[in-house]
Amino acid sequence: MTTNKIEPRTLKGFRDFLPKEQKARQEMLLKIQEVFESFGFEPIYTPALEYKEILLNKYGEDEKLVYSFTDHGAREIALRYDLTVPLARFVAEHQSTLTYPFRRYQIAPVWRAENTQRGRSREFIQCDVDIVGTDSELADAEIIACFCKVLETLGIKNFEARINDRKLFNIFQNASGGSPEQIVTIIRGIDKVEKIGVEGVLEYLKNQGISGKLLEQVEKFLSIRDSQNIFTEIQNQFEEGSALVGYIQKLMKNIMRFGVSADKLAFDPFIARGLDYYTGMVFEIVLKDKPEFGSVTGGGRYDSLVDQFSNKPLPAVGASLGIDRLFEALESAGNLPTGTNADCLVLNLSKSLTEDYLDMLKKLRSNGISSEIYYEEEKLPKQFKYAESKSIRYALIFGNEEKELGQVKVKNITSREEESVALENITDFIQKKLNK
Amino acid sequence: MTTNKIEPRTLKGFRDFLPKEQKARQEMLLKIQEVFESFGFEPIYTPALEYKEILLNKYGEDEKLVYSFTDHGAREIALRYDLTVPLARFVAEHQSTLTYPFRRYQIAPVWRAENTQRGRSREFIQCDVDIVGTDSELADAEIIACFCKVLETLGIKNFEARINDRKLFNIFQNASGGSPEQIVTIIRGIDKVEKIGVEGVLEYLKNQGISGKLLEQVEKFLSIRDSQNIFTEIQNQFEEGSALVGYIQKLMKNIMRFGVSADKLAFDPFIARGLDYYTGMVFEIVLKDKPEFGSVTGGGRYDSLVDQFSNKPLPAVGASLGIDRLFEALESAGNLPTGTNADCLVLNLSKSLTEDYLDMLKKLRSNGISSEIYYEEEKLPKQFKYAESKSIRYALIFGNEEKELGQVKVKNITSREEESVALENITDFIQKKLNK
Repeated sequence: MTTNKIEPRTLKGFRDFLPKEQKARQEMLLKIQEVFESFGFEPIYTPALEYKEILLNKYGEDEKLVYSFTDHGAREIALRYDLTVPLARFVAEHQSTLTYPFRRYQIAPVWRAENTQRGRSREFIQCDVDIVGTDSELADAEIIACFCKVLETLGIKNFEARINDRKLFNIFQNASGGSPEQIVTIIRGIDKVEKIGVEGVLEYLKNQGISGKLLEQVEKFLSIRDSQNIFTEIQNQFEEGSALVGYIQKLMKNIMRFGVSADKLAFDPFIARGLDYYTGMVFEIVLKDKPEFGSVTGGGRYDSLVDQFSNKPLPAVGASLGIDRLFEALESAGNLPTGTNADCLVLNLSKSLTEDYLDMLKKLRSNGISSEIYYEEEKLPKQFKYAESKSIRYALIFGNEEKELGQVKVKNITSREEESVALENITDFIQKKLNK
Repeated sequence: MTTNKIEPRTLKGFRDFLPKEQKARQEMLLKIQEVFESFGFEPIYTPALEYKEILLNKYGEDEKLVYSFTDHGAREIALRYDLTVPLARFVAEHQSTLTYPFRRYQIAPVWRAENTQRGRSREFIQCDVDIVGTDSELADAEIIACFCKVLETLGIKNFEARINDRKLFNIFQNASGGSPEQIVTIIRGIDKVEKIGVEGVLEYLKNQGISGKLLEQVEKFLSIRDSQNIFTEIQNQFEEGSALVGYIQKLMKNIMRFGVSADKLAFDPFIARGLDYYTGMVFEIVLKDKPEFGSVTGGGRYDSLVDQFSNKPLPAVGASLGIDRLFEALESAGNLPTGTNADCLVLNLSKSLTEDYLDMLKKLRSNGISSEIYYEEEKLPKQFKYAESKSIRYALIFGNEEKELGQVKVKNITSREEESVALENITDFIQKKLNK
């Protein structure tokens, strides 16, 4: 059969990870999982595909980024956009079998048809932690503390959790008579201030039909950004300010008691979060020396989301960490975790010795030493090059001469040092070298 | 806003996993990964979505099971059906940067629009190991050995690897003049023999236009199933038999040298594998006391797949293990790995002691003890019930009385035994209990 070659390519916005990168990513995910579990969170699994109606009306302007299609059974289905809405569906569906507060983590890919010009990926791994079924302020604090702990565990020092409460935006309702729909629009606008500036936000809101006193109120609010003491300004300028400041201060105190130091926490009344489902506390964590990466973690309280699938309302709070941006940040800081490579390569000096090689390999592996055999009897430099390019630590040399002496030559691939070891001691010898 | 409730439901053929199940699955995946890594395989990551043309003409009759749709940019895209074709695309795309033989593992979900009446899932996790760029017989042996080792590590004892070589099916070409297309049809037919029997296969082949001498040859071949000594029958009846038997015997010897015992290996000339891309050795692993689960692992040699994406042909061999069927088998045998739950629950006896509770929690967690706090000051039976339903091992009781004494009461949730410990020794005490 002659076939035309198909061009091997990945879709725009999608990418492969080669072994070295993927090993580091897996190490990173394992560390994150360990922190989640130390906080007593338990894993769940939900499918990548959901009924489209489950995801509708949850993501505001981003709804257009949901990948959706019609399946073989004419069902309208969609690839999950995040792990939060599927969680709300999950909790409603399994409501009676769960223990509350339900504390779960989930580490899984999500898909978004992002504009790739902004360098965004269309598939990325999210690590989520949520607590469903409690409105305790301790839950708000614990979520933020958990992600701060994750970043510390990954060796990131210079980060800041910027915290706000969406209830602050009631100022646009109470003082200026904004309708709930207008408040949603204003929140979406304020969410963009980091990217497009105050003028940009006002322009956006004007185009969305916000005007008059309401627009003035937004302008007045955003002008606080330039002030020296934002806490005081919020308290002085807005009636709702005092209650908010009280809540934030207590929240911060609790986060510290969960083990986070004060310099990692900041009040930021301009954190709004773009998604429609948040109802209370919202926060983002930024890397202070990598502002170009934006927020690496974000979340908040969403007390009415489960409600959309169930008659039993369940308040909830949670957050997401996207590993891809964090991975890039760690990579550019030369701070990547290193995955483990194979420890040994059994070289192939003669096909007639295959039996001996496989015996050696079996012994090494069954003693926890990750090992490979070079299949073909090829020139030694080629075999060494293979070990080198895969960062394998030791090459084991065993030819007819060594067999007669009952010895193996162990070559350190990096230092090029060679030592001879009795064949029966090879496993012990390597284990000692590796401190296993 | 009043909204109509959306029914919380998962798509047909898809399912959630609750914490207990998901923990066990994750334990299982980690063990599998450890075996793969002990064999020196390295991980890669490929996206869930591929250009549809990458997946076309690879899966034979199953091609209709591929989920495909048109994306926002009018591209024809598809969810991956397996991890093998994406690997071939990956190798062709990154050809010049890889080290050969390229030994990779990948653990990831795949999607197939299966008929759910047969109890099949439409999303399942596959664990794949492949070796690309060598036609060494040792590679064939190592792939089979690796998956036998995986099953042993998972505590499965009664399994059998059934091995064949697709070249055997050349008998239908050489002796009976079948065309390559007819051979493909015959292979697809023979692949069904376990499910539909000999009569069913012959009926299927007739409907596909196979007749006369060719059909007689298939009938003669399938009649060997009833014979006592299949090895001898194949050798005696077919000219190609001797070469095949020689290859299989050598292969089995090598698999044993990689550490698998003889009773785990069988020659089975009726293993064909449904997918079109196999070219040589094919095998399946079955659980002998759970025949209803079918094969839990399958794979083989596919020397012409990378070829479809590249001008540099790269022979390859590999296999897949689907964890879902295996998980069910382990579950029904009461043989599931147990995930770890939180070790301690700090009970809430008084809101005024929150600060003390959070201090205790911080100390426990920073000493590697997975712990939670009960947020609300509620009746103790309710708090104990929470600990019990989550299989948390110890409840830490600290009220005003205990505070005065500087002590914590530690209650073992299972045995209900209670001990008092000095507050400053609580971490050591729990660590000793847990043998950490």
